[in-house]
Parts: sequence; C-alpha cells; structure tokens
Amino acid sequence: MALSCEALSPGLIREIEKIPGPHKVFAAIEDRLCYSYDGTFKTGVPGLVFKPTTTEQVSRLLSLASEAGVPVIPRGAGTNLSGGSVPVDGGIVLCTADMSRVLEISPADSLAAVEPGVITARFQRTVEAQGLFYPPDPASSEFCTLGGNIAEGSGGPRGLKYGTTRDYVLGLEAVLASGEVIKAGGRTIKNVTGYDLARLLVGSEGTLAVVTKAYLRLLPKPAYKRTMLAAFPALDDAGEAIARIIGLGTLPTTLEIMDGFAIRAVENFLGIGLPAWAQAMLLIEVDGHREAVESQIPGLEMACLGAGAKEIRVANDEDEAQDLWRARRSVSPAVTQLAPNKITEDATVPRSQVPEMIRRLQGIRDRYDLPLVIYGHAGDGNLHPNIAADKDDAELMKRVERAIEEIFEVALDLGGTLSGEHGIGLLKRPYLGMELGPAGLEVTRRIKSALDPKNILNPGKII
Amino acid sequence: MALSCEALSPGLIREIEKIPGPHKVFAAIEDRLCYSYDGTFKTGVPGLVFKPTTTEQVSRLLSLASEAGVPVIPRGAGTNLSGGSVPVDGGIVLCTADMSRVLEISPADSLAAVEPGVITARFQRTVEAQGLFYPPDPASSEFCTLGGNIAEGSGGPRGLKYGTTRDYVLGLEAVLASGEVIKAGGRTIKNVTGYDLARLLVGSEGTLAVVTKAYLRLLPKPAYKRTMLAAFPALDDAGEAIARIIGLGTLPTTLEIMDGFAIRAVENFLGIGLPAWAQAMLLIEVDGHREAVESQIPGLEMACLGAGAKEIRVANDEDEAQDLWRARRSVSPAVTQLAPNKITEDATVPRSQVPEMIRRLQGIRDRYDLPLVIYGHAGDGNLHPNIAADKDDAELMKRVERAIEEIFEVALDLGGTLSGEHGIGLLKRPYLGMELGPAGLEVTRRIKSALDPKNILNPGKII
Repeated sequence: MALSCEALSPGLIREIEKIPGPHKVFAAIEDRLCYSYDGTFKTGVPGLVFKPTTTEQVSRLLSLASEAGVPVIPRGAGTNLSGGSVPVDGGIVLCTADMSRVLEISPADSLAAVEPGVITARFQRTVEAQGLFYPPDPASSEFCTLGGNIAEGSGGPRGLKYGTTRDYVLGLEAVLASGEVIKAGGRTIKNVTGYDLARLLVGSEGTLAVVTKAYLRLLPKPAYKRTMLAAFPALDDAGEAIARIIGLGTLPTTLEIMDGFAIRAVENFLGIGLPAWAQAMLLIEVDGHREAVESQIPGLEMACLGAGAKEIRVANDEDEAQDLWRARRSVSPAVTQLAPNKITEDATVPRSQVPEMIRRLQGIRDRYDLPLVIYGHAGDGNLHPNIAADKDDAELMKRVERAIEEIFEVALDLGGTLSGEHGIGLLKRPYLGMELGPAGLEVTRRIKSALDPKNILNPGKII
Repeated sequence: MALSCEALSPGLIREIEKIPGPHKVFAAIEDRLCYSYDGTFKTGVPGLVFKPTTTEQVSRLLSLASEAGVPVIPRGAGTNLSGGSVPVDGGIVLCTADMSRVLEISPADSLAAVEPGVITARFQRTVEAQGLFYPPDPASSEFCTLGGNIAEGSGGPRGLKYGTTRDYVLGLEAVLASGEVIKAGGRTIKNVTGYDLARLLVGSEGTLAVVTKAYLRLLPKPAYKRTMLAAFPALDDAGEAIARIIGLGTLPTTLEIMDGFAIRAVENFLGIGLPAWAQAMLLIEVDGHREAVESQIPGLEMACLGAGAKEIRVANDEDEAQDLWRARRSVSPAVTQLAPNKITEDATVPRSQVPEMIRRLQGIRDRYDLPLVIYGHAGDGNLHPNIAADKDDAELMKRVERAIEEIFEVALDLGGTLSGEHGIGLLKRPYLGMELGPAGLEVTRRIKSALDPKNILNPGKII
C-alpha cells in the first residue's frame, strides 16, 4: 500500500470544503487510510474522502472533480468483493454512507424511496415491520448499503425465486460525471419512456453515475416459510435432486448447495453434527401461503429421497431453521480460519450445469492443490468457490491466479458468466473480453465515454 | 402516404440480393406498401423490404446499409402502438417475421431460446404444454412477435404480479448498426458481467441494435386460477377496493379497471348484461397454488364489498372466467366501432393515483368533448385512455392532440410516466423531454450515437 500517497492540491480541497454542508471532508492520512480497502485484498489510499448528505453536494463535488480532472471513486460500506470500490490510483473517495435516510415507504404503491447509504438489512427489517418485503439479500446485508447493492447489482440466496437488485429498482436519481442530475425510471413497475437508464446504472459499479436516490419495489411479506436440509452420498445425487425439485412446479425461495469439502470445513470449525460423510448438502427454503408451503414439503422430501438423499432434516420452527442456515452461513467464516486471505468467486452457470461445474471445480482444487471450498446458490447456478490464500505467499498466489482463470474458462465453457453478483471491478477486469468479445468490449467502452467522457468516475474498473 | 416513394438504388438492391439466402427481398411497390403501417395511423413506404432467416443475413444487411448510409427500420408484426416501426422517411424495413423458430426449451434451466419472429401467444402455448409459463401478455399476443415485445418492453395485464418483458429477458444476441454481432447477458438469472446491455436493448425500439436471438426466463405454470368481477357505483369506491386488495398481502395476477363510459361502450356493443349503472368495474384474477388461491377469494370479496361494490361475480370455471374477460377484452373493439381511427395511450401512474388519474382523464374527456374510453391495468397504474378519432377530421384531431398532451402532463404531475408499455416511437417523441429533462435527453442522445454513430437504425424514433 502506497502509504506516502499525497492528498489533493490544497486549492481543490479548499473548493470542496466550501461546498455548502453539512458534509465531511477528510484530508488527513489516518482518515484516508480508513477508505483504502474493500472486501478483497486490494488496497489503495485516496487523496481525499468526501461524505455528502445531499444530492446537491454530490453534484458540486463531481463538477469540481470534473473541472480538475480528478478521479472520483464512489463507495458505500466497502464490502465489495471485486475491488470495485478501492481507490487504487488515488483520487477522491465519494462515500455515500451518510446519505442514509429511508425517505418514504408507500404500502399503497408497494415501494420505498431511499438514499444510497441505507444499510440493506436495516431496510429489510423496516419494511417487514409494515408487512412488506425487499427480497435481495447479499451475504453482507448487515453491513452493506443499498447504494452499493445497486452499483453492483447484488443478489443473494433468494435469486432463484425473487431475482436480484435490478429486479427491484423502479427508478433512480443519479449524478453524472459532469455534476448534472438525471432521473431514470420512476415510481411505476411499467416504464418504457426512453432507454432503460435505471437498469443501465444498476451494476455499473459507479463508472457511469453516482446514485443519490432510489425507488425500490416492495412485495407483500410472505406469510410463512419452511426450511429443510438434505445430505447426499454423491454430488450427482444432489444434482438430480435439484432437477427433481425444479420439476415439482413451484420455485423454492432458496436452493443452496455445499460440497463435501465445505461440509467438513464447517464441521471442523463448529462441530455442530453435520453429516461429515456427505459429498453434498442442499439447504432448501420455501415461502408463501401457509397451506401452499406445507403442501410442498412432502414433495420436496420425496424429490431428495428419490435422488438418493440419506438424511433429511426439516426445521419445525424458526429456531430450527436458523440452526440449518448456520451450516450454510458458516462456510465463509470457516474458510477465513484456514488462511489470512480469502478469495470469493461468483462464477455462474445455467442451473443444469451445477453438478458439472462443481466436478470441474473439484478438479481445479486437486490440480492446483488449493484449499478451495465450494458452495453457493445452486438454484440459480451462482456458485461461490472460496479459496483460502495468503497474499504474501507469491508461489501460492500464482497457483491461485491460474486456478481463478480456469474457473472463469470453465464457467464460460458451460454457458455461464464470470460474475453472478459480485461485479467485475478490478479483479475480473482482465477477463471481461473472454465473455463479451471484442465487439462487446467496444460497446462497453463507448457507453462509458458517452456518459463519462473525461473518465473521472471510478476509472479502471470494469473496463 | 407518399405512394411515389422510390425503391433504393439498383446497385444497393443487387448487393442486398446477393446476401447468401434463404431470405426475401421485396422491391416492388405493391410489396413495400404491405410494410408501410403499424397499429397507429402513421404510415410511410419503405424503399425496400428485407426478410432474413439468419443472424448472418441481418449482419450483412446492416453492414451494407451502414456503408451506404441508408436507414434500416426493424419490424416484427407491425402491431406497434407508437409509430415505432413505421418507415416514415423510407429506408429498408428489416422484418424479422421469418426468424420464427423456438430454438430450445429447457425445463432444467427454466428458459427458452427463441428467434425474434416467434408469435408471442404461440410461444406461450408451446411452453405451457410443458408445464412452463411466460407471463408477458400484450393485448396483441396472437399477432405480435417476441422480438417486437423485446424492442418495445411490452407488458400486459399480468404486470402487477409478474412484471414485463424486461423481467424475462436473460440474454440477447443482437447485431449492431455496423453489422457486428454482440452477446448481452446469457442463460443465467444472475449476471453482472459488465454493463446490463441486455436490458439497455429491451425497450430501445430498434434504435440501438437488432435482436436476433433471445434467452427468455420461464416460470413454473401456475396450477390454478380464479377470476372475479366487481362493479362499483362510484369511481372512488373502486380506488378504495384496489387499496384494500393490495393491503391483503398477496398480489393478484391482474387487477383491471374500466370506467363507466367504457362499461357502457362495451354493453352497447355486445349487450352481455354488464352493470350499465356502474361507474367502475374491477376484473380481478389470482393464480398459484389451489388452496392458496381459494383462500384468497373471500378476502377479495370482502375488500370489494367493504369498499362499496354493489355486484360481484366470481367465475366458477374457465368458461365463466372467459365471459368475465370478454367485457374487458371488448373495450378496444367497442371503441373501434365509434370512429375510423383509435388512439390508444398508455400513460402510467403510481397505483395509488389511479382514481385521481381517471378523474382527470374524465375532465379532459368533458373539456375537449371527445369519445375517450378509460380502462387499463389498475394494479400497476398503467391506464389505457382510448380515443375514437378520425384522422381526416382536422378540427377533431386538433382537440385530440391537445387532449393527449394534457394526458401526459397529468401523468407526470401524478408522479407517472409517458409510456408504460407501448414505447415512445414517433408519436410520443415530442414529449420525451417533459419526462427526462435536458440532461436525460442528452444522455439518451449520447447512448444512441455511441451504439449507432451513423444514425441508420430506426432514425427519428424515441429521440
């Protein structure tokens, strides 16, 4: 990390400080260091940190930065898993964490208006208290912000039934690199007035505009849910169970998978009586109308048993459901125990390819002799191969890099994509062309320059 | 209509005919006339019609047109309601109707791969035969194509529960103006690799690229549905019923409304015993698990009665359901009886504003003394004010134009949008700035030139 990184020119800092407040400007190195990282092992110290509280302040900041030609790196809570919010080349970190108001919850219109700094899980609890439901549930939901979720197009376990963040963004207010404010979409589910700028901004990782307000679609809160876990002696049995479950004709809310290595990593870490003999485990949750949910349980059990499950546990209440989820939620912490760094990938394949993808990932694990733990959202094909690594071990990191490149190749070979929910950011940028091809890369470049001709918004990310 | 419109230069036509087939090239005036209209009253004769059967042919055509600087107007079945597919300034109509294969239906991956010329309703029946479900259901579904639906971002009555076309497009293959082929999105629900080009193309009305293949997300087919109709003595009672229904905590599949004028227009046309005394009627459909659906019926009846409904009819079987739908489906034909032309708007407001929107539309009807029939998708705020008009009656058309401009103003005033599902095309282009503002217009323009620098793809539409 370049600890010697200089702050911006005193003249520009004075101009930024003069933007009518309240806002925060951090120029001291000890403050700037706090904004030098994200959820990856990438770091970079910004030249300045600006924490606005209004759209007007964001607009003024961007117009000053634009004039001065200084890069601006938008940031929420810094939980990003692709290096997207790391200021690797300095510049101004524009942290929206203090724009954290829920501006409106409208049960009549089934929507909420929020500022970008609202913490996702807090928002979910707020709307659930009113009988409403915001489905996107990234693993970092207790820390990450809705603005970050929008910038990354975040997903989570409920993607199978409910989709991802992009499916819940009705409208956005955003500030362009020039400082101009645009409105994209609005308060309605249906809107085909002009190009779909709202969805162009979702997942654009702060490279096209800075989101300052969002209208998010809400659903009625599901009345009831049940959770079950099934353990299989062979990976293919779990694959067969997934196919049978989908064939039942109702979408589960979640359909999570852990491979044998992941099961044993968690069991070694927690000792909670997981079936250590199993080569795969599925965690299945269904929600909705009480009778509809209850009537699905026997079918789900039959599907798993018919596919070869040797053990099934159905939670009888919320506490038991949380016990079942504990195994799945502990995979990531268990990997963290194994080495100083953890690399979390999110290569995604069509659902029918999940068993083959896992088999190939296991081959990569063996070939490069890496502690590679495989789990993820089997229902939507979004797997999370996690590698325990040590970024200071050059030999290990070389193997890790080669393994990651192979993971991408395999995902594309199986008809999938580099990233299901973490974004391209910095870490996957070298591989973007593998998926988009030269024409796709060129279109991406042209859209970037159309919206940010001076290339000041999060430069070097995605493309 | 400019009947004298010339075909393209013989040299260019020869080059186009030399594109390896099979495809169709129409240069004779009697053939070209067949592609001179859409669902509006706008017309324009193309200089040539090209009907490809492969992506390669689309690519060759676009690269020839690009070199020659000749406009290309993509067209599906010509059911467009905003003038978007009319070749008002000549050029080549690129009609994708002959690219009409369903390439794949994958129950395992819950998706289908289709060519753009597939007829929507035929596709729906094909997937339903396999227990799957494609929800978007524009009124023209028996005639319109999936490619047209993608280009327009089409919706339909099921938008409330199921969203619109954009929510079902997983991935696209598309040809740029230059003839280059790009891949946007893919086969997975989750995909955040680069900008969301797939959704940028959805609703772009053929101005950015020509879609040649689409991966569409499919759901399990709902096991069961029930349909009911409720008639109210006052519009506000229907508004109250909508709010109470949404408050029940489960989303109906459809929640359609007709105002008193629409009810009486249909009753005069068909004489099927509609409650002619009513000032508003709601048509409500719920689908899903059998017990879940059945358990909702009493709540829906109570919600309507509690809000003041004086008559409720619940269909006991599919035939009775079709009888109830007949009233709603006959509004448009009933309007067609009243005058030679029909102008169908689709201004959309937040759901809570539907009663106020209807009241203001009634005011516009009275003020301009127009046969304006009001009905539409109340559940998602997408109303369809229909005006019976005669395009050769200049005085009448002046009143119609002023009325339409006021409709747009009212929709925006109530927090809505110009177009919920028909697109901007030609007819709403003059009003785009009312909603997007100068910065939004400028971004739209820049995206257009980024993807189509020579402005040959459907020029003059949207922007």
